[in-house]
Amino acid sequence: MSNKPNIVILGAGYGGMITAARLQKSTASKDANVTLVNKNDYHYQTTWLHEPAAGTMHHDKTRMDISKVLDLSKINFVQDTVVEIKAEEKKVVLGTMELDYDYLVIGLGAVPETFGIPGVKEHAFGITNVDSVRQIKDHIDYQFATYSQMDEKHDEMLTIVVAGAGFTGVEFVGELTERVPELCKEYDIPREKVKLVSVEAAPTVLPGFDEELVEYAMNLLESRGVEFKINMPIKEVRADGVLLNDDTMLKSNTVVWTTGVRGNPVVENSGFEAMRGRIKVEKDLRAPGYEDIFVIGDCSLIINEETERPFPPTAQIAIQQAYTCANNLKALIEGKKELEVFNPEIKGTVASLGGNEAIGVVGSRKLYGNSASVMKKMIDNRYLYLLGGVPLVMKKGKLKFY
Amino acid sequence: MSNKPNIVILGAGYGGMITAARLQKSTASKDANVTLVNKNDYHYQTTWLHEPAAGTMHHDKTRMDISKVLDLSKINFVQDTVVEIKAEEKKVVLGTMELDYDYLVIGLGAVPETFGIPGVKEHAFGITNVDSVRQIKDHIDYQFATYSQMDEKHDEMLTIVVAGAGFTGVEFVGELTERVPELCKEYDIPREKVKLVSVEAAPTVLPGFDEELVEYAMNLLESRGVEFKINMPIKEVRADGVLLNDDTMLKSNTVVWTTGVRGNPVVENSGFEAMRGRIKVEKDLRAPGYEDIFVIGDCSLIINEETERPFPPTAQIAIQQAYTCANNLKALIEGKKELEVFNPEIKGTVASLGGNEAIGVVGSRKLYGNSASVMKKMIDNRYLYLLGGVPLVMKKGKLKFY
Repeated sequence: MSNKPNIVILGAGYGGMITAARLQKSTASKDANVTLVNKNDYHYQTTWLHEPAAGTMHHDKTRMDISKVLDLSKINFVQDTVVEIKAEEKKVVLGTMELDYDYLVIGLGAVPETFGIPGVKEHAFGITNVDSVRQIKDHIDYQFATYSQMDEKHDEMLTIVVAGAGFTGVEFVGELTERVPELCKEYDIPREKVKLVSVEAAPTVLPGFDEELVEYAMNLLESRGVEFKINMPIKEVRADGVLLNDDTMLKSNTVVWTTGVRGNPVVENSGFEAMRGRIKVEKDLRAPGYEDIFVIGDCSLIINEETERPFPPTAQIAIQQAYTCANNLKALIEGKKELEVFNPEIKGTVASLGGNEAIGVVGSRKLYGNSASVMKKMIDNRYLYLLGGVPLVMKKGKLKFY
Repeated sequence: MSNKPNIVILGAGYGGMITAARLQKSTASKDANVTLVNKNDYHYQTTWLHEPAAGTMHHDKTRMDISKVLDLSKINFVQDTVVEIKAEEKKVVLGTMELDYDYLVIGLGAVPETFGIPGVKEHAFGITNVDSVRQIKDHIDYQFATYSQMDEKHDEMLTIVVAGAGFTGVEFVGELTERVPELCKEYDIPREKVKLVSVEAAPTVLPGFDEELVEYAMNLLESRGVEFKINMPIKEVRADGVLLNDDTMLKSNTVVWTTGVRGNPVVENSGFEAMRGRIKVEKDLRAPGYEDIFVIGDCSLIINEETERPFPPTAQIAIQQAYTCANNLKALIEGKKELEVFNPEIKGTVASLGGNEAIGVVGSRKLYGNSASVMKKMIDNRYLYLLGGVPLVMKKGKLKFY
């Protein structure tokens, strides 16, 4: 094509999209061929997926056509799956073709972490992508419909087990408390027949979160009918429910697995050294030993120097990494040697609990109830603003604040 | 309670509801205790069920609270299932109680006819009631959702087999041709992946209907992607599809059984002589040998004297029977011996084919396309008018005519 360098970005999640958008805005998109590779022709909001999973939001609201957000006269887009990265050959193997790169950005996101527990892949649902959450929503609807239709009632059809009470698990169960009364009305089912059970192996819900806020969240969710089983590992997931650590069987036709994530398996399968699928990156976000490969988002691992533990992978960090990554790509193309060091700035964390309820920490302030909920929606809208400006906020934003 | 005679009406379908409504309007509701028994606290439009089954109408539009249509200060309502009629003791056994009657109206409707074909009950869905069609709709949604979510695609998830090309089967497959493009959009599935197959044992679609109109219907539905297998009995329904008479297996996760109906099994189980669950009634609609029992709707059998064959059970006949039944009950209570003779007046038959398409015969006129579709909607609205006047038409009517 030309003798411009090829920048290939793998994955159109938070990191990949913002990297592409930043390059598009800068001279780098003239000085290099920028190619974005993604399985789907759309980008979606991973952090919103608990809502369509519960059925409180249509899945289309969480996604947007890549061609409507990026200018595809400036960024090449290839819709394909990534099979392998051949770093020594500077090549990426896709499902139907190969791509050569001069600079590579790995932003392939995460997959659910099963911890080797048997039956998770076969019998549990994951809040992973648009396809998987659409299936959860329809599965739950179908359980309710079938329950109404059967002469002999099997109450496990109306029991939803959420495995994992981390961020996604708590946000999902919160949405379910909003959705269940609607489902009961739609399917002529008494509310007391429906059980929502949150099962967590750790001794607390939302490990690492402020204790007072966790208390607030648990009280609120319990008052809305959620049953918590804390300190209770799951031994096995079966077709008819979960076997708990105390050898009791919790019968359920709907087990949703939210116990955390690991980096996309392409990373390990391509021979990179990784912890739970995540590459511990250099300060400039490059993979150790590779001057031409940047890793951002859930495939990257960054140590919090204050706690000496890894930062949990979040959209917030992925987005901030994308800014640094785009700046560093531009610098390399311009022949500069000095790269920018990535410094995460954790602005806050807010977990929605369904409806107008949420808990959060912003700076040193604790928030709960409606003010936390408004903050959560503002955070969600701010991302849309970064990506596509006011028009995208108007189109896909959360504009009902109470 | 009183020494007024007890009239008990079993079933709140077309026949039972109109009988109750007519009694309510007449002096009979003062001169007798009128009790209506029904499994649900709502009445629904059996003839509309193909629409919520396909997902082109919400199921709530087909149903209405009995308490909002009847005046329950004049008609007693008991929500219960009917277990057995003890005609010699003039008693009806319900799920939780027994009722004594002086006059009984059997309007218990129909159940699907399986013709003893193995696997129908286990593996096929029925367009039978609100619960069953809600389940069909959600089952189809779930198949589409799961197909999108799976890495390996199983096309039988997108194949819908409609067993029986009588009235309900054709109307249902017609609705599906409307619904499938919406489903494909909702679940990101190419239209050509979806198969709609109508399987009929008889040598023709819509047996007994005008040949020219049948031709019109088949051409239209084929142009919308329906595949017909005529003259093709089904040997067995299995979990993974239907085994056809030529020993080929038609793979499908969704088999909907619409090969006709038989009278409610309570009739035969209570010792009445019946053909396919239907009692051949006297000219005044009473069961042979019982002066105090009327049978209307799908549990009754009436011979068409022109053809010497039974009239197919339709809402039209059930509604007309209800008028005669209510008049005869009033006459008996007033001590009259002469009862009215039932004379069915077949005004016409219209089958919808989805969207604004239909075929029909009204009087000696053949109708097709939009004019048949408008006629069909007028017929549906006329029933609502008979039952609940203009307010019910406004609330539940089909008011978009094109």
